[in-house]
Amino acid sequence: MYPESLKDLIEGFKLLPGIGEKTAERLAFYILAIDEEKADFFSKSIIEAKHKLHKCSICSNITDEEKCNICSSNTRDNKTLCIVEDCRSIFLFEKTGSFKGYYHVLDNLISPLDGINPEDIGIEKLVKRIENSSFEEIIIAVKPSIEGETTSLYIKKILEGLNVKVTRIASGIPLGADIEYIDSLTLERALIDRKEIE
Amino acid sequence: MYPESLKDLIEGFKLLPGIGEKTAERLAFYILAIDEEKADFFSKSIIEAKHKLHKCSICSNITDEEKCNICSSNTRDNKTLCIVEDCRSIFLFEKTGSFKGYYHVLDNLISPLDGINPEDIGIEKLVKRIENSSFEEIIIAVKPSIEGETTSLYIKKILEGLNVKVTRIASGIPLGADIEYIDSLTLERALIDRKEIE
Repeated sequence: MYPESLKDLIEGFKLLPGIGEKTAERLAFYILAIDEEKADFFSKSIIEAKHKLHKCSICSNITDEEKCNICSSNTRDNKTLCIVEDCRSIFLFEKTGSFKGYYHVLDNLISPLDGINPEDIGIEKLVKRIENSSFEEIIIAVKPSIEGETTSLYIKKILEGLNVKVTRIASGIPLGADIEYIDSLTLERALIDRKEIE
Repeated sequence: MYPESLKDLIEGFKLLPGIGEKTAERLAFYILAIDEEKADFFSKSIIEAKHKLHKCSICSNITDEEKCNICSSNTRDNKTLCIVEDCRSIFLFEKTGSFKGYYHVLDNLISPLDGINPEDIGIEKLVKRIENSSFEEIIIAVKPSIEGETTSLYIKKILEGLNVKVTRIASGIPLGADIEYIDSLTLERALIDRKEIE
C-alpha cells in the first residue's frame, strides 16, 4: 500500500527497540515533513557514528580516538578502577560527577543460559591492565542480577593475589522510593547490608 | 562528555517527535550495538525516502511515481472523491477497506491564527480537478476541529454550482467507547446527528 521507499523507512524505524508498526509509521511521516537538511543530518549521524566510533584500546569505552577521553586524562585518580557492563554505564556514572577514577567495560556478563561463559567477558584484558597499573581498589559496578552477581564473584576470585581491594556498589532501596513498591529480595538485601548510622 | 559523532547521533534522534534526551541516548547506544548493515539500511532509508518521495501530481498523496497508485488505478469508483488533510489519512482510510473512490489531499486546514487562510489550502487544484471529472459526491474527511469545520464550510461554499453533492464524515461517539469519558461537545453532536434505526 505504501510506496517502496516509505515502506523501507518504516522498516528502518522498526529496527529500534520499543518502536512498533504504528509509531514507525508516525515517525516515517514525520521524516517526510521535515526539512531535507535535518533528514540528511539524521541519516549521516547514523552512518558516521557507526563508522567513526569504536572501542577504546584500554578500557573498551566508546571513542572516536585510539584512547577514550577518560583513559587519556592524567588528572584522574589512578588508584581506583570501576568495572562496568557497558559504555552507557560510564556516561551515567560520569553524570553523577562523584567518581574520579578510571573505568573498564566488560565484554559481557556471565550468563551460561545465553551461552556466555567466564572466558567471554574479556577477563584477560582486565587482568593484564590491573597487573600493569597502580590500582588499589577495583569497584565492580554491574547490575545486581544473577548474571551480575556471578560475574562479580568470578572477577573477585580471578583478582585474588593481585593485591587489590575488590568492592561492589551497594544494593538496596533507591532514594525516594516507597518501601511498599520494593520487591522482597531487595528489602532482604537492604536489611542484610544495613549500616551503622554515624 | 560523549564523542562528537555520538553527540550528533543523539541530536539526530532528538529531531523526532516525542523523543527527549534520555530516549535519544538509549536509541543512539542501540544503534552502536546493531549490525552495520542494519544501521546502513536505516540511514539510507531516510535519505531515499526524502529523495524519492514527492506529491502525486493529481491528488497530492505521497508517491515515488508521477501519479500515486490510487490515482493510477482504473478499477476505483470515479464517482466519489474523499478530501483529507494529510497523506496519512489516505493510508488509514485504505486500511478500513471500505472506500473505493479517489482521494484529494489538502495543503492545509484553514487556521487564521496560524496565518493559514482560505487561499493556502490548495483549493484551485481541487476545483480544477472536480471540474474535469465525473465525481458526483465529494466526501470531506478532515478532523472535526474548528479548523476542520471552517475548512469544510469553505469547501462546501466554493463547490456550490459545480453539481456535486458535498458530504462530511460522521462525528459522534467512537465505537466501544464509554459514554462517561466522552466530552460534552461530542455528546451534543451525537445527539443532534442521531439516526433513525432501520
